[in-house]
Amino acid sequence: MDIGSTEMMIVMQESATGEDVDRILERLDSAGARGHVSTGDLATVIGVVGERDVIAGLPLEAYPGVDKVVPILKPYKLVSREFRRSDTVITVGGTSLGGGHVALIAGPCSVETREQLLEAAVSAQQAGATMLRGGAYKPRTSPYAFQGLGVEGLEILAEAREATGLPIVTELMDPRHLEAVAKYCDIIQIGARNMQNFQLLSAVGEVSRPVLLKRGLAATIDELLMAAEYILKEGNANVILCERGIRTFEMATRNTLDISAVPILKQRSHLPVVVDPSHAAGKVDLVEPLSLAAIAAGADGLMIEMHPTPEIALSDGAQSLDPGQFARVSKRIQDIIDWAGKTLG
Amino acid sequence: MDIGSTEMMIVMQESATGEDVDRILERLDSAGARGHVSTGDLATVIGVVGERDVIAGLPLEAYPGVDKVVPILKPYKLVSREFRRSDTVITVGGTSLGGGHVALIAGPCSVETREQLLEAAVSAQQAGATMLRGGAYKPRTSPYAFQGLGVEGLEILAEAREATGLPIVTELMDPRHLEAVAKYCDIIQIGARNMQNFQLLSAVGEVSRPVLLKRGLAATIDELLMAAEYILKEGNANVILCERGIRTFEMATRNTLDISAVPILKQRSHLPVVVDPSHAAGKVDLVEPLSLAAIAAGADGLMIEMHPTPEIALSDGAQSLDPGQFARVSKRIQDIIDWAGKTLG
Amino acid sequence: MDIGSTEMMIVMQESATGEDVDRILERLDSAGARGHVSTGDLATVIGVVGERDVIAGLPLEAYPGVDKVVPILKPYKLVSREFRRSDTVITVGGTSLGGGHVALIAGPCSVETREQLLEAAVSAQQAGATMLRGGAYKPRTSPYAFQGLGVEGLEILAEAREATGLPIVTELMDPRHLEAVAKYCDIIQIGARNMQNFQLLSAVGEVSRPVLLKRGLAATIDELLMAAEYILKEGNANVILCERGIRTFEMATRNTLDISAVPILKQRSHLPVVVDPSHAAGKVDLVEPLSLAAIAAGADGLMIEMHPTPEIALSDGAQSLDPGQFARVSKRIQDIIDWAGKTLG
Amino acid sequence: MDIGSTEMMIVMQESATGEDVDRILERLDSAGARGHVSTGDLATVIGVVGERDVIAGLPLEAYPGVDKVVPILKPYKLVSREFRRSDTVITVGGTSLGGGHVALIAGPCSVETREQLLEAAVSAQQAGATMLRGGAYKPRTSPYAFQGLGVEGLEILAEAREATGLPIVTELMDPRHLEAVAKYCDIIQIGARNMQNFQLLSAVGEVSRPVLLKRGLAATIDELLMAAEYILKEGNANVILCERGIRTFEMATRNTLDISAVPILKQRSHLPVVVDPSHAAGKVDLVEPLSLAAIAAGADGLMIEMHPTPEIALSDGAQSLDPGQFARVSKRIQDIIDWAGKTLG
Repeated sequence: MDIGSTEMMIVMQESATGEDVDRILERLDSAGARGHVSTGDLATVIGVVGERDVIAGLPLEAYPGVDKVVPILKPYKLVSREFRRSDTVITVGGTSLGGGHVALIAGPCSVETREQLLEAAVSAQQAGATMLRGGAYKPRTSPYAFQGLGVEGLEILAEAREATGLPIVTELMDPRHLEAVAKYCDIIQIGARNMQNFQLLSAVGEVSRPVLLKRGLAATIDELLMAAEYILKEGNANVILCERGIRTFEMATRNTLDISAVPILKQRSHLPVVVDPSHAAGKVDLVEPLSLAAIAAGADGLMIEMHPTPEIALSDGAQSLDPGQFARVSKRIQDIIDWAGKTLG
Repeated sequence: MDIGSTEMMIVMQESATGEDVDRILERLDSAGARGHVSTGDLATVIGVVGERDVIAGLPLEAYPGVDKVVPILKPYKLVSREFRRSDTVITVGGTSLGGGHVALIAGPCSVETREQLLEAAVSAQQAGATMLRGGAYKPRTSPYAFQGLGVEGLEILAEAREATGLPIVTELMDPRHLEAVAKYCDIIQIGARNMQNFQLLSAVGEVSRPVLLKRGLAATIDELLMAAEYILKEGNANVILCERGIRTFEMATRNTLDISAVPILKQRSHLPVVVDPSHAAGKVDLVEPLSLAAIAAGADGLMIEMHPTPEIALSDGAQSLDPGQFARVSKRIQDIIDWAGKTLG
Repeated sequence: MDIGSTEMMIVMQESATGEDVDRILERLDSAGARGHVSTGDLATVIGVVGERDVIAGLPLEAYPGVDKVVPILKPYKLVSREFRRSDTVITVGGTSLGGGHVALIAGPCSVETREQLLEAAVSAQQAGATMLRGGAYKPRTSPYAFQGLGVEGLEILAEAREATGLPIVTELMDPRHLEAVAKYCDIIQIGARNMQNFQLLSAVGEVSRPVLLKRGLAATIDELLMAAEYILKEGNANVILCERGIRTFEMATRNTLDISAVPILKQRSHLPVVVDPSHAAGKVDLVEPLSLAAIAAGADGLMIEMHPTPEIALSDGAQSLDPGQFARVSKRIQDIIDWAGKTLG
Repeated sequence: MDIGSTEMMIVMQESATGEDVDRILERLDSAGARGHVSTGDLATVIGVVGERDVIAGLPLEAYPGVDKVVPILKPYKLVSREFRRSDTVITVGGTSLGGGHVALIAGPCSVETREQLLEAAVSAQQAGATMLRGGAYKPRTSPYAFQGLGVEGLEILAEAREATGLPIVTELMDPRHLEAVAKYCDIIQIGARNMQNFQLLSAVGEVSRPVLLKRGLAATIDELLMAAEYILKEGNANVILCERGIRTFEMATRNTLDISAVPILKQRSHLPVVVDPSHAAGKVDLVEPLSLAAIAAGADGLMIEMHPTPEIALSDGAQSLDPGQFARVSKRIQDIIDWAGKTLG
């Protein structure tokens, strides 16, 4: 695939010699890229033009005399707003996300039992949710915590879709489970801890299911876009970006929701952006204000944890709404979607 | 002043001895605090009750055998929601902030000239601003950058108030300038870099002007509340808390706006909370989405940089709206204030 | 496997009712754990004792009236210093790491060609390295960058071991490659981006090769230990912990080397600790001071990038020493190992 | 003072027009700076040369069509290694710091009583300390904690100098105390919370006492250098930089000691660099490994908290060594100073 040319600038140190400059020009030349030298009063700058994959591989900062290397164009292409001006809209099971359609994805952290999930699914649907979430494979910090039901959980999710009509979002953690997950679910979720699991990204790039890609705890906005680029590069253009909080020094919340990421992602990319206030805050009573803030900031969807009885949840109970709480929050969310001139689902 | 009692727990290490426990109990006793020992299957815990200022001064973590010290009650009192249930409402010059009243504070980063400021003030007022901001003393990272007009700037601000009726918010950086700043302005701003300049906090605690206290770049929510406690302790109960972004690894924005701080501060404290989207983002085109998100999350006000001609601003031009942009953003802000069921000013 | 009991404290809010407390006691009881209530002057605390895996799964923070949950014992067991007092020593190919033996692991970021790797291996050995590193599978932020040679790279690594006798450390990114990697290498590396790829951790827990586990960019010290616990839980006790820098706001270095992690990991765990100054700093001229600091702080090994000709490296050239630089740094490192009273290899 | 010219590059957006470029060139021209346009295949770059204080004040990022502004030269001058090649050596009371001389600064966090301080001073001296530290004015997060003895504390410090001959380092928090502090002490400390208290920096720039400037919790290395530039700009060239840990997500230590800051500061500046392992770690048992690491990384001094009886300290007891611990750690520090080929004091 032709992924186009890119450009960067190499700023030389004040003490750099003509030989230092020549060495770089030769290296660029041998790699098929071109360098233009511009000599300032105090420093010399080399502008570079070349193919994206060639430039990405050159260790230009390692050359003697180099002060810094400044990329001019973004290192991603397919995900960029420049590549595609209009918003990507993702439609599954008759409901949409992006381009004025706002998704409300709700459900428990983990599929625990058939009863638990079906009850959650029905409550979610009745309160206005447009998609159902639930984990059959769970990434857990502790090896002693509940790890998910696996294929049995996937089957329960499929049954809940039958019962409610809600499309299913579920997490994939291992390329060896891809076939099963793709068979049962409508949208494949890649969790924050796997945002740079590049084998997994490439694998989901080859299937036809949309992918919901969560931002890593320490990933920059551009790294999230590069991770999405891995998926698009393999041919799957239906990627949803998910802001779910980053790790900072502030311990009053589980993570710090980076609300600015919503408008920035939408400026830089045509892909839809979803916010997960439950994981960001880790607290039930922050779900409503953060959900409203996300829609006000331009998000294309919300992903909210809801459990029939949070007190007995096997994971993330502390941040799960119960059905009554979810119904109240959902009403406020639908209100602000109206205010924003957008449509639910 | 009686600031009441507080409580903490001391968790002992598994290897702690009876002597370790006794040594702590004696120390607590001699300081006038009380300890209750609770022996668990694996670890011993000492519950402590005592006066807030006594407890704060004991180096309990330094004692042999101590694993960790866990505060049970918050280390602040006067700022807490427990101390005062109802929202603090601050009224200056006929306009209010808090308790359902939302302030829209606008104006340039620095007072540069009489013409610049008067033009900004008139534009701000016409577009709906309820207060005027402008710096006469400027904290600048570089000693070579413009440092503000000082008293001349304060006089210009007072003239702008005459012309428009808008109350004035301006920054105090040095206790030696307090008299002059308090004389000319309506609300004294303490900047993020001085949030833990405790001499300055105590000084503004002794005057009758309301104080707008900005959160430090690396300050936790509780540290912001402790800084406010310094002001209230001296007798000044009119403090406005301001979230303006924290420093994280993400470089796409100047700082990361911690939107969750809005609902958390309002849960923990009765003081009003204002958001500064301009400093948080450092970018003009993020001011609108972040302003809307802040109101949706429950903020009692916004503080927005606006300059008659941002391109020639002496500071923060990159994040200042021009009057036309401000008027458009102000309209959207007034819309969402209505949606939230609150009142402008 | 019996992983023993653990303990935690639940601190109730001041406003908690007797019913709130009873509800928690019932839940603990039904889960087979026990709660002891201690009523303070201001707050009630419930001490909990129970099996580690039971406690880890209870959503106690979700219960009404709960202020916070404080773990008393560490959530890991097998990796802890309490579980095993003496240092774990790992020996491969006649060279050791841990318990007074310091490893010097050197080599290029990626295996690029047979000539490059063999040249690197010989230079490393001659300068005193005790192990050879080199990546056959490479995690790259950009999908357009060089992704490694795969099995061909593994074969070249094995040839280099034949030529020099140096044991091989190489990264595993995908459980589907485990058999091949385990066949060719001596120590399996899990990269920072995969530190919480729990499937991969469990997979390497089932093989007999030692594992070098790198700390994630945003992982706490305790999360690193929990990730190691995943490996030990499956039966593989030969884990090496690697500090390689964490992500902070400071951009003068690629990452911030958390030098304090070295003594803390050695206090909390019996596992050996290695430092990677090359990835932490991202700059050639910081490799020496950071290497010396790591040994002075108590590290059991160093992992240093070295390339025959860094200027043409396909990855990480900016932080790779050339053989001459490596020889000089290696001499200083051997000097400080002597000073510390330890042995190289 | 002539502070010389600087240089930067303005990278234009792909969509920028010729008018956008012209508007910038006119603005540069009217400010007395010069712009050179370089038109690339994809993007246009404007190189700018001008006076440091002019360039620092231009809001170039606010101009339409600008993608980013890249500084080429560092924004500081007087503190830079380019300005002065040889190490600054600071000598007070017969002992030196910098240029191969390593200072060992010890003493309690706060001056509490005459007896406490004199005992600490004698113990420090006997164990090899070359300077005495102690706070008479204390910045405390809580307004209810001990705030220092003020002038009485300064007098006690002066008496301890009489008794031991050790020069005194003490903190200044308020410009109104400058005269008193400068009268009694040998080195004025500016604390981390005041690193960007620019009024205070300018004030100490005008006196003849050396200044020990601590890095702020969220300050970058370049911001620390800019803060030092404030002091040098006023005429005081005797500044000591102090790394004392930065704030990150890692909670196992009070702050994260940024050990890489030591070699980077010494590359970028001629000023001496001291490390404070006590505040960085917040734990007694990390003081030794971090002290050794700091010297190995090239630090010119250490600042260590020591208290005759840490258990009754009024502040920072948890991180203070007792005299016996300090004597043992001091011996190891003197050992590694020898190993590094440097001299104590």
